[in-house]
Amino acid sequence: MMQDRPDFEIDHRLAAMSVHIDRFADIDIRLVNDSRYHWLILVPALPDIVEVDDLPPPTAGALFKLAGELGAWLKAYAKADKINIAMIGNVVPQMHVHVVARHIDDEHWPDPIWGRGAPVPLPDDGVAARKAALQAATTGLAQPE
Amino acid sequence: MMQDRPDFEIDHRLAAMSVHIDRFADIDIRLVNDSRYHWLILVPALPDIVEVDDLPPPTAGALFKLAGELGAWLKAYAKADKINIAMIGNVVPQMHVHVVARHIDDEHWPDPIWGRGAPVPLPDDGVAARKAALQAATTGLAQPE
Repeated sequence: MMQDRPDFEIDHRLAAMSVHIDRFADIDIRLVNDSRYHWLILVPALPDIVEVDDLPPPTAGALFKLAGELGAWLKAYAKADKINIAMIGNVVPQMHVHVVARHIDDEHWPDPIWGRGAPVPLPDDGVAARKAALQAATTGLAQPE
Repeated sequence: MMQDRPDFEIDHRLAAMSVHIDRFADIDIRLVNDSRYHWLILVPALPDIVEVDDLPPPTAGALFKLAGELGAWLKAYAKADKINIAMIGNVVPQMHVHVVARHIDDEHWPDPIWGRGAPVPLPDDGVAARKAALQAATTGLAQPE
Protein backbone atom coordinates (compact mmCIF):
# COMPACT_ATOMS: atom_id res chain seq x y z
CA MET A 1 0.00 0.00 0.00
CA MET A 2 1.50 3.27 -1.07
CA GLN A 3 1.41 6.04 1.47
CA ASP A 4 0.82 9.66 0.63
CA ARG A 5 3.73 11.93 1.20
CA PRO A 6 3.07 13.76 4.44
CA ASP A 7 3.25 17.04 2.53
CA PHE A 8 0.60 16.08 -0.05
CA GLU A 9 -3.12 16.40 0.53
CA ILE A 10 -5.67 16.17 -2.23
CA ASP A 11 -7.85 19.24 -2.69
CA HIS A 12 -11.19 18.70 -0.94
CA ARG A 13 -13.15 19.59 -4.09
CA LEU A 14 -11.33 16.97 -6.16
CA ALA A 15 -11.83 14.44 -3.36
CA ALA A 16 -15.56 15.22 -3.18
CA MET A 17 -16.20 14.81 -6.92
CA SER A 18 -14.29 11.58 -7.47
CA VAL A 19 -13.27 8.21 -6.03
CA HIS A 20 -9.77 6.79 -5.86
CA ILE A 21 -9.05 3.87 -8.22
CA ASP A 22 -5.33 3.28 -8.37
CA ARG A 23 -1.93 4.92 -8.20
CA PHE A 24 0.73 4.78 -10.91
CA ALA A 25 4.12 6.18 -9.96
CA ASP A 26 3.15 9.43 -8.22
CA ILE A 27 -0.17 9.75 -10.01
CA ASP A 28 -3.59 9.08 -8.51
CA ILE A 29 -6.20 7.75 -10.94
CA ARG A 30 -9.68 8.84 -9.87
CA LEU A 31 -13.16 8.22 -11.29
CA VAL A 32 -15.43 11.26 -11.39
CA ASN A 33 -18.86 10.44 -10.01
CA ASP A 34 -20.99 11.80 -12.84
CA SER A 35 -23.68 9.91 -14.73
CA ARG A 36 -23.51 12.44 -17.59
CA TYR A 37 -19.96 11.57 -18.68
CA HIS A 38 -17.36 8.84 -18.45
CA TRP A 39 -14.73 11.01 -16.85
CA LEU A 40 -11.42 10.41 -15.06
CA ILE A 41 -9.02 12.75 -13.33
CA LEU A 42 -5.31 12.11 -12.84
CA VAL A 43 -3.77 13.86 -9.85
CA PRO A 44 0.00 13.94 -9.26
CA ALA A 45 0.28 13.14 -5.54
CA LEU A 46 3.05 15.65 -4.94
CA PRO A 47 2.89 18.96 -3.11
CA ASP A 48 2.67 22.34 -4.81
CA ILE A 49 2.01 21.20 -8.38
CA VAL A 50 -0.03 23.74 -10.36
CA GLU A 51 1.47 23.99 -13.85
CA VAL A 52 3.11 21.32 -16.05
CA ASP A 53 6.42 23.03 -15.45
CA ASP A 54 6.13 22.25 -11.71
CA LEU A 55 6.28 18.48 -12.33
CA PRO A 56 9.50 16.48 -12.09
CA PRO A 57 10.17 15.43 -15.73
CA PRO A 58 9.73 11.67 -15.09
CA THR A 59 6.35 12.32 -13.46
CA ALA A 60 5.33 14.56 -16.37
CA GLY A 61 6.27 11.81 -18.82
CA ALA A 62 4.36 9.18 -16.85
CA LEU A 63 1.34 11.47 -16.48
CA PHE A 64 0.91 12.11 -20.19
CA LYS A 65 1.60 8.50 -21.11
CA LEU A 66 -1.07 7.45 -18.63
CA ALA A 67 -3.52 10.07 -19.93
CA GLY A 68 -3.04 8.70 -23.45
CA GLU A 69 -3.41 5.07 -22.41
CA LEU A 70 -6.44 5.66 -20.22
CA GLY A 71 -7.94 7.89 -22.89
CA ALA A 72 -7.64 5.08 -25.43
CA TRP A 73 -9.18 2.63 -22.98
CA LEU A 74 -12.00 5.02 -22.09
CA LYS A 75 -12.77 5.73 -25.75
CA ALA A 76 -13.34 2.02 -26.35
CA TYR A 77 -15.13 1.39 -23.04
CA ALA A 78 -17.55 4.29 -23.44
CA LYS A 79 -17.84 3.85 -27.23
CA ALA A 80 -16.94 7.53 -27.41
CA ASP A 81 -16.50 9.74 -30.46
CA LYS A 82 -13.68 11.82 -28.96
CA ILE A 83 -11.54 12.00 -25.86
CA ASN A 84 -11.01 15.42 -24.30
CA ILE A 85 -7.86 15.84 -22.20
CA ALA A 86 -7.31 19.05 -20.30
CA MET A 87 -5.52 20.80 -17.50
CA ILE A 88 -7.57 23.88 -16.66
CA GLY A 89 -7.16 24.53 -12.92
CA ASN A 90 -8.87 27.92 -12.87
CA VAL A 91 -11.14 26.82 -10.00
CA VAL A 92 -8.97 24.16 -8.32
CA PRO A 93 -5.31 25.03 -8.92
CA GLN A 94 -3.95 21.68 -7.63
CA MET A 95 -2.96 19.94 -10.86
CA HIS A 96 -5.51 17.48 -12.19
CA VAL A 97 -5.73 16.17 -15.74
CA HIS A 98 -9.23 15.59 -17.02
CA VAL A 99 -9.81 12.64 -19.36
CA VAL A 100 -13.40 12.76 -20.63
CA ALA A 101 -15.28 10.59 -23.12
CA ARG A 102 -17.46 12.65 -25.44
CA HIS A 103 -20.27 11.69 -27.77
CA ILE A 104 -21.66 13.77 -30.60
CA ASP A 105 -25.12 13.50 -29.04
CA ASP A 106 -24.07 14.41 -25.49
CA GLU A 107 -25.56 17.38 -23.68
CA HIS A 108 -22.74 19.86 -24.30
CA TRP A 109 -21.18 18.67 -27.56
CA PRO A 110 -19.09 20.19 -29.12
CA ASP A 111 -18.38 22.53 -26.21
CA PRO A 112 -16.08 21.54 -23.35
CA ILE A 113 -17.93 20.20 -20.29
CA TRP A 114 -16.16 22.30 -17.65
CA GLY A 115 -18.25 25.15 -16.33
CA ARG A 116 -21.38 23.75 -18.00
CA GLY A 117 -23.87 22.26 -15.59
CA ALA A 118 -23.04 20.18 -12.54
CA PRO A 119 -22.20 16.48 -12.15
CA VAL A 120 -25.18 14.20 -11.60
CA PRO A 121 -24.08 11.46 -9.15
CA LEU A 122 -24.28 7.86 -10.26
CA PRO A 123 -26.26 5.30 -8.29
CA ASP A 124 -24.01 3.20 -6.04
CA ASP A 125 -24.03 0.24 -8.41
CA GLY A 126 -23.09 2.58 -11.26
CA VAL A 127 -20.00 3.73 -9.38
CA ALA A 128 -19.14 0.12 -8.56
CA ALA A 129 -19.46 -0.99 -12.18
CA ARG A 130 -17.28 1.80 -13.56
CA LYS A 131 -14.77 1.34 -10.76
CA ALA A 132 -14.44 -2.38 -11.46
CA ALA A 133 -13.95 -1.82 -15.20
CA LEU A 134 -11.35 0.88 -14.60
CA GLN A 135 -9.49 -1.20 -12.03
CA ALA A 136 -9.36 -4.08 -14.49
CA ALA A 137 -7.99 -1.71 -17.13
CA THR A 138 -5.32 -0.19 -14.90
CA THR A 139 -4.21 -3.67 -13.83
CA GLY A 140 -3.32 -4.27 -17.46
CA LEU A 141 -1.13 -1.18 -17.77
CA ALA A 142 2.60 -1.37 -17.15
CA GLN A 143 3.69 0.53 -14.05
CA PRO A 144 6.30 3.15 -14.94
CA GLU A 145 9.81 2.08 -13.99
CA MET B 1 13.86 24.61 -43.95
CA MET B 2 11.79 21.66 -42.88
CA GLN B 3 9.34 20.35 -45.41
CA ASP B 4 5.92 19.02 -44.57
CA ARG B 5 5.45 15.36 -45.15
CA PRO B 6 3.51 15.02 -48.39
CA ASP B 7 0.79 13.20 -46.46
CA PHE B 8 0.31 15.96 -43.86
CA GLU B 9 -1.85 19.00 -44.41
CA ILE B 10 -2.93 21.32 -41.61
CA ASP B 11 -6.68 21.64 -41.14
CA HIS B 12 -7.92 24.80 -42.86
CA ARG B 13 -9.66 26.02 -39.69
CA LEU B 14 -6.45 25.77 -37.65
CA ALA B 15 -4.55 27.49 -40.44
CA ALA B 16 -7.10 30.31 -40.59
CA MET B 17 -7.06 31.07 -36.86
CA SER B 18 -3.29 31.05 -36.33
CA VAL B 19 0.12 31.87 -37.80
CA HIS B 20 3.12 29.58 -38.01
CA ILE B 21 6.01 30.42 -35.66
CA ASP B 22 8.41 27.52 -35.55
CA ARG B 23 8.72 23.75 -35.73
CA PHE B 24 10.19 21.52 -33.04
CA ALA B 25 10.70 17.90 -34.01
CA ASP B 26 7.40 17.09 -35.74
CA ILE B 27 5.44 19.78 -33.91
CA ASP B 28 4.29 23.07 -35.38
CA ILE B 29 4.12 25.98 -32.94
CA ARG B 30 1.43 28.44 -33.98
CA LEU B 31 0.20 31.74 -32.53
CA VAL B 32 -3.56 32.17 -32.40
CA ASN B 33 -4.60 35.56 -33.76
CA ASP B 34 -6.83 36.68 -30.91
CA SER B 35 -6.56 39.94 -29.01
CA ARG B 36 -8.63 38.51 -26.14
CA TYR B 37 -6.07 35.90 -25.09
CA HIS B 38 -2.40 35.02 -25.35
CA TRP B 39 -2.95 31.68 -26.95
CA LEU B 40 -0.77 29.12 -28.77
CA ILE B 41 -1.59 25.88 -30.51
CA LEU B 42 0.84 23.00 -31.02
CA VAL B 43 0.08 20.80 -34.03
CA PRO B 44 1.91 17.52 -34.64
CA ALA B 45 2.72 17.71 -38.37
CA LEU B 46 1.95 14.04 -38.98
CA PRO B 47 -1.00 12.51 -40.81
CA ASP B 48 -4.01 10.98 -39.08
CA ILE B 49 -3.34 12.10 -35.50
CA VAL B 50 -6.53 12.58 -33.51
CA GLU B 51 -5.98 11.14 -30.02
CA VAL B 52 -2.82 11.08 -27.85
CA ASP B 53 -2.62 7.36 -28.46
CA ASP B 54 -2.12 8.02 -32.20
CA LEU B 55 1.20 9.79 -31.60
CA PRO B 56 4.56 8.03 -31.88
CA PRO B 57 5.83 7.96 -28.25
CA PRO B 58 8.84 10.25 -28.90
CA THR B 59 6.55 12.85 -30.50
CA ALA B 60 4.13 12.57 -27.57
CA GLY B 61 6.99 13.14 -25.14
CA ALA B 62 8.28 16.13 -27.11
CA LEU B 63 4.77 17.57 -27.44
CA PHE B 64 4.04 17.63 -23.72
CA LYS B 65 7.51 18.84 -22.82
CA LEU B 66 7.03 21.69 -25.30
CA ALA B 67 3.55 22.47 -23.96
CA GLY B 68 4.99 22.73 -20.45
CA GLU B 69 7.94 24.89 -21.49
CA LEU B 70 5.88 27.22 -23.67
CA GLY B 71 3.22 27.37 -20.97
CA ALA B 72 5.82 28.51 -18.44
CA TRP B 73 7.13 31.10 -20.89
CA LEU B 74 3.63 32.33 -21.76
CA LYS B 75 2.66 32.61 -18.09
CA ALA B 76 5.57 34.98 -17.50
CA TYR B 77 5.20 36.87 -20.80
CA ALA B 78 1.46 37.48 -20.38
CA LYS B 79 1.72 37.92 -16.57
CA ALA B 80 -1.00 35.29 -16.39
CA ASP B 81 -2.64 33.78 -13.34
CA LYS B 82 -3.03 30.30 -14.85
CA ILE B 83 -2.12 28.38 -17.96
CA ASN B 84 -4.81 26.19 -19.52
CA ILE B 85 -3.59 23.27 -21.63
CA ALA B 86 -6.11 21.20 -23.52
CA MET B 87 -6.73 18.77 -26.33
CA ILE B 88 -10.42 18.98 -27.15
CA GLY B 89 -10.81 18.32 -30.88
CA ASN B 90 -14.60 18.08 -30.92
CA VAL B 91 -14.81 20.60 -33.76
CA VAL B 92 -11.44 20.09 -35.47
CA PRO B 93 -10.33 16.49 -34.90
CA GLN B 94 -6.77 17.00 -36.20
CA MET B 95 -4.75 17.02 -32.98
CA HIS B 96 -3.90 20.45 -31.66
CA VAL B 97 -2.86 21.29 -28.11
CA HIS B 98 -4.12 24.61 -26.79
CA VAL B 99 -1.85 26.59 -24.47
CA VAL B 100 -3.76 29.61 -23.18
CA ALA B 101 -2.82 32.32 -20.69
CA ARG B 102 -5.68 33.15 -18.33
CA HIS B 103 -6.26 36.06 -15.99
CA ILE B 104 -8.75 36.19 -13.14
CA ASP B 105 -10.27 39.32 -14.68
CA ASP B 106 -10.55 37.97 -18.24
CA GLU B 107 -13.88 37.76 -20.02
CA HIS B 108 -14.58 34.07 -19.42
CA TRP B 109 -12.74 33.32 -16.17
CA PRO B 110 -13.00 30.73 -14.62
CA ASP B 111 -14.67 28.95 -17.53
CA PRO B 112 -12.67 27.48 -20.41
CA ILE B 113 -12.47 29.76 -23.45
CA TRP B 114 -13.41 27.18 -26.09
CA GLY B 115 -16.92 27.55 -27.40
CA ARG B 116 -17.28 30.95 -25.72
CA GLY B 117 -17.28 33.85 -28.11
CA ALA B 118 -15.08 34.19 -31.17
CA PRO B 119 -11.48 35.35 -31.58
CA VAL B 120 -11.02 39.08 -32.12
CA PRO B 121 -8.14 39.52 -34.57
CA LEU B 122 -5.12 41.53 -33.47
CA PRO B 123 -3.93 44.54 -35.46
CA ASP B 124 -0.99 43.66 -37.74
CA ASP B 125 1.56 45.16 -35.39
CA GLY B 126 0.06 43.16 -32.53
CA VAL B 127 0.60 39.92 -34.43
CA ALA B 128 4.14 41.01 -35.26
CA ALA B 129 4.97 41.84 -31.64
CA ARG B 130 3.68 38.55 -30.27
CA LYS B 131 5.32 36.61 -33.08
CA ALA B 132 8.71 38.21 -32.41
CA ALA B 133 8.49 37.48 -28.68
CA LEU B 134 7.48 33.89 -29.26
CA GLN B 135 10.19 33.34 -31.87
CA ALA B 136 12.78 34.68 -29.42
CA ALA B 137 11.45 32.29 -26.78
CA THR B 138 11.45 29.23 -29.03
CA THR B 139 15.01 30.01 -30.14
CA GLY B 140 15.99 29.56 -26.50
CA LEU B 141 14.45 26.09 -26.20
CA ALA B 142 16.49 22.98 -26.85
CA GLN B 143 15.38 21.09 -29.94
CA PRO B 144 14.44 17.51 -29.09
CA GLU B 145 17.12 15.02 -30.08
